[in-house]
Amino acid sequence: MNGPASSKPPRLKDLIKAARGLIPVDLLIENVSYVNLLTGEIYRASVGVLGDRVAYVVEGGADRLKARRRFDGRGLYAVPGLIDSHLHIESSMLTPPRFAEAVLPRGVTTVAIDPHEIANVLGKKGVKYMLEASGGLPLKIYVLAPTCVPSLPGKETSGAELTADDVEEMLGWKGVIGLAEVMDFSGVINLDPRMIEIVEAGRRRGVVIDGHCFLRGLDLNAYVAAGMEADHENFSFEDALEKLRLGMLIKLRAPYLLDVREFVNGLKSLRSPIGFLLVTDDVLPDNLKRDGHLDNVVRNFIEAGLDPIEALRASTLYPAIHLRLYDRGLIAPGRLADMVLLRSLEGFEVEHVFADGDLVASGGKLVKPIPIPSFPEDAKKTVKVRRLSLEDFKIRAPIERGKVKVRVIELLGAEEAEGAESFSQSILTRFSIEEVEVREGWLDPGALALIAVIERHGKGGGMAKGLLKGSGLREGAAASTVAHDSHNLIVVGKDPKDMLSAANKVIEMRGGVAVARGGEVIASLPLPVAGLMSEEPLEKVAEGFEKVRKALRSIGLRDHPYSPPLFFLALPVIPEAKITDRGLYSVLEQRFVSLFAE
Amino acid sequence: MNGPASSKPPRLKDLIKAARGLIPVDLLIENVSYVNLLTGEIYRASVGVLGDRVAYVVEGGADRLKARRRFDGRGLYAVPGLIDSHLHIESSMLTPPRFAEAVLPRGVTTVAIDPHEIANVLGKKGVKYMLEASGGLPLKIYVLAPTCVPSLPGKETSGAELTADDVEEMLGWKGVIGLAEVMDFSGVINLDPRMIEIVEAGRRRGVVIDGHCFLRGLDLNAYVAAGMEADHENFSFEDALEKLRLGMLIKLRAPYLLDVREFVNGLKSLRSPIGFLLVTDDVLPDNLKRDGHLDNVVRNFIEAGLDPIEALRASTLYPAIHLRLYDRGLIAPGRLADMVLLRSLEGFEVEHVFADGDLVASGGKLVKPIPIPSFPEDAKKTVKVRRLSLEDFKIRAPIERGKVKVRVIELLGAEEAEGAESFSQSILTRFSIEEVEVREGWLDPGALALIAVIERHGKGGGMAKGLLKGSGLREGAAASTVAHDSHNLIVVGKDPKDMLSAANKVIEMRGGVAVARGGEVIASLPLPVAGLMSEEPLEKVAEGFEKVRKALRSIGLRDHPYSPPLFFLALPVIPEAKITDRGLYSVLEQRFVSLFAE
Repeated sequence: MNGPASSKPPRLKDLIKAARGLIPVDLLIENVSYVNLLTGEIYRASVGVLGDRVAYVVEGGADRLKARRRFDGRGLYAVPGLIDSHLHIESSMLTPPRFAEAVLPRGVTTVAIDPHEIANVLGKKGVKYMLEASGGLPLKIYVLAPTCVPSLPGKETSGAELTADDVEEMLGWKGVIGLAEVMDFSGVINLDPRMIEIVEAGRRRGVVIDGHCFLRGLDLNAYVAAGMEADHENFSFEDALEKLRLGMLIKLRAPYLLDVREFVNGLKSLRSPIGFLLVTDDVLPDNLKRDGHLDNVVRNFIEAGLDPIEALRASTLYPAIHLRLYDRGLIAPGRLADMVLLRSLEGFEVEHVFADGDLVASGGKLVKPIPIPSFPEDAKKTVKVRRLSLEDFKIRAPIERGKVKVRVIELLGAEEAEGAESFSQSILTRFSIEEVEVREGWLDPGALALIAVIERHGKGGGMAKGLLKGSGLREGAAASTVAHDSHNLIVVGKDPKDMLSAANKVIEMRGGVAVARGGEVIASLPLPVAGLMSEEPLEKVAEGFEKVRKALRSIGLRDHPYSPPLFFLALPVIPEAKITDRGLYSVLEQRFVSLFAE
Repeated sequence: MNGPASSKPPRLKDLIKAARGLIPVDLLIENVSYVNLLTGEIYRASVGVLGDRVAYVVEGGADRLKARRRFDGRGLYAVPGLIDSHLHIESSMLTPPRFAEAVLPRGVTTVAIDPHEIANVLGKKGVKYMLEASGGLPLKIYVLAPTCVPSLPGKETSGAELTADDVEEMLGWKGVIGLAEVMDFSGVINLDPRMIEIVEAGRRRGVVIDGHCFLRGLDLNAYVAAGMEADHENFSFEDALEKLRLGMLIKLRAPYLLDVREFVNGLKSLRSPIGFLLVTDDVLPDNLKRDGHLDNVVRNFIEAGLDPIEALRASTLYPAIHLRLYDRGLIAPGRLADMVLLRSLEGFEVEHVFADGDLVASGGKLVKPIPIPSFPEDAKKTVKVRRLSLEDFKIRAPIERGKVKVRVIELLGAEEAEGAESFSQSILTRFSIEEVEVREGWLDPGALALIAVIERHGKGGGMAKGLLKGSGLREGAAASTVAHDSHNLIVVGKDPKDMLSAANKVIEMRGGVAVARGGEVIASLPLPVAGLMSEEPLEKVAEGFEKVRKALRSIGLRDHPYSPPLFFLALPVIPEAKITDRGLYSVLEQRFVSLFAE
């Protein structure tokens, strides 16, 4: 098995002896309501564990069996540990051990991460750091090698670019088990040599290749034919069904990204569908703290009417098979003893969590602290921006006074919707042409907001500026080094002074998010690891992020429960009007456009 | 992919171009009723193929898409090629290419074979010969390394013994993808060093490990904990359910071995069971010719009420996943173009079969001959028996005249049942003590029959003799080198002269089966390859075997539609009374017993 080594695999002979009851098991969980994911039955059973493995599952109690430790499971449902096959830890703003602390109490015991955020900042080294930080945790963290770093080569300056050779090299690392979401679907179907090489590297090794596309028809056929096995970019059931029909596993994220009820009803309208998995993708710290992680997705689907057995298969057994991790996904002899005991099956209320045979969490809390090693210092020195000045945030016009036509980025989502609309709707943009006043040679944004993206990887320090419509911003400014996918320093504001304050605060914190008003920083969250993550625990990071959200809203900046749209304004792969450190970019035309319209 | 190389994999770039409709596909199958095994839907679709891969599946017709060859699929259901995850080719008495000829027209396109019959004769070399004979066929033949050769070390003389090192070596061969049925379940749970080493070799490589056991309770837990993933020894649904509950895949064989209706009703009584596969195990040539192969199992299960979608998943997609063959099991872009077009879905009537994108069979016939290379000569010189005499078949008594008490093998099954009872019932035996007349120092079998097993691998030529009760034999004799698992020369008869004639005929044929009466051979089938297989086509082998069966029945020897029980009388792992070349053997007591009772 190419992956995280368990701390205490039993010898095969001992496991066999323990399973036969000839030697005591280490742990005996008695009289649970055992949820059998193969037969669909629920019955009373007892589970014996030796080392990190299940030794036996016997029906009823186990009075006559010997154990070093007995655990009363009466009144609790036993289900396998949750397995999340698509997520980015960086979105939690936590480092891997802190993330483990946060999700283990939620019942998550195995994840396959795509560390493409840190890879955009630190390249292969960032991936290596994530692997190193993931070692020896009770949460098994596997890595899918990031395939599209940067998201759009040549259109943005990232901290690193990953070549096909880099991807091939990473596939050889222990713990790297496949290719992460191949986002450059256009590159794949248009035979971009780099993307073809990367896909072929995955195909040669026979590892899992994850997809991410917005294709239909023959283009979708071509993408699937290239080897993409699964896709999480499912927003309508109709689109997802087209992928499923072509043999792709569909990974469903909830809430905020899709209408769970629509999907459940869609699945129920089919004869006996298989091939859908539940995943999280991005969960921000405040949401993680309040709602949970993959457990929350499972709850959402069960609540919307999905049979709990199907919801569990989609979050345990099927992702295990998809990831080729044949040693888990069921509570059964020989499998990893990753188990969740639930107070309620329908409500997916997690009471106890066992990982590798150890009780790791009870009542939502870790029962034993996880050691938290520090990231290397160079991972915390990634915000390399020259000294900024007020003028950096002002836009010089081609005339001294009067009006000019300016191409502005318009946020299309309803300003006050906040969750009534899906997140994907909330980050849609287009270019609109506006007449803007010029005073003393500078643009006066008036009702619009200023936006700037500043290269922060020490690669020349370029920057681009523009105007933003429909942001809701009334005053102040916000700055962030979380700015998908290159994670340059993005700054929006009504007032250059506030923009400078917010930006300087982020630089001083070595990365993070800051909000300023009246020249002063009113909220900030330091994210020193790659400018993306904190080494603090979830409690503290979530609290800090809640304050930042509140501050963002207080200055009027549009927000969405899933994520502030701000973090996505520089992502040049989501239509239509974007800004990278190199300029205003039209996603649909695939070219840079000028700020001034004529 | 560690396995048979396809003859014509397309370049990835070409496959993508073809999928987008930018270049013509090689083959376009239009307007089929496409059976979608993920969604459970059936809808009209067209399938484009490039090289050996599916390029696209478009709904409806495909008039505007270009193809080198168009194939009208109207009125036909399209389903993936069948995948059989457990079988012994040797039981068909055909060599691998002849087997391919026979099963491709039945819709079987991938098999995972356990060549343990030839391995008992020729050892690793036999396995290698099977692999070599399997190369370059449109039927993809993978090998699971035999794990229990001989079936019971020290209790029978086989042509070879496979050590743990041998198994480990075979796992390194191209085309060997796992461990075949670990029949020595007792060895596994009792920590027999050889079996533990073999299982550990499979576990180290993370390959599929197939099971075979008759265990329950904690012993079954121990066997599963050791890594056994699947089991085909399912005779009652209750026993199978116990295995399924413990996380084992259950492989179901039909007809003759289980009550299909009992199993279908059992499965339907569960909420939404998964984890069952359809397999053939052993199909003798006459049955293969008359009823088919895995298609027949599928038909049996659908006929008994299993949803055709579930029957198809259990014989295509799920075995593909079980065998870790992720490139097949669905008709979907990028997967191997192994497809079956059916006239009727419910009746599973195969009309056309495509393998690797080529039409290989239509209307039950191959459309293009398969080259049939010959087996190496040494594989055809495996019957090494000294010159036999009449006295070899007579039993010397400890007295000159009178009566002696003899321990005889009694066949328990109903003599005339012929299929009314299951095959496993038909081969059950026990020892019974009978008083037997002695004339001139020789036993006179009277109403009983004589039985002899003669070592035929050139390992000393030992033999054992005994008496058989309940065989039905009225006259004549039968001899066979098909005699599981060691495949020594087994001979039964009423008259030593006939026994000598039959045995000599088998020796002269270099292996096979012969029936004699009145001192003359009345039917015979040569099986010169390892004494198990013929290089002739199915038609001829089935015809020959039908004649042998008819002859066996004409002399009264009990038969069963699945297989003549004769072939199993020397198998010392099925209870209770057996005879190997080393003597009479009590399976339950695990020891040899004496012929004379006192």
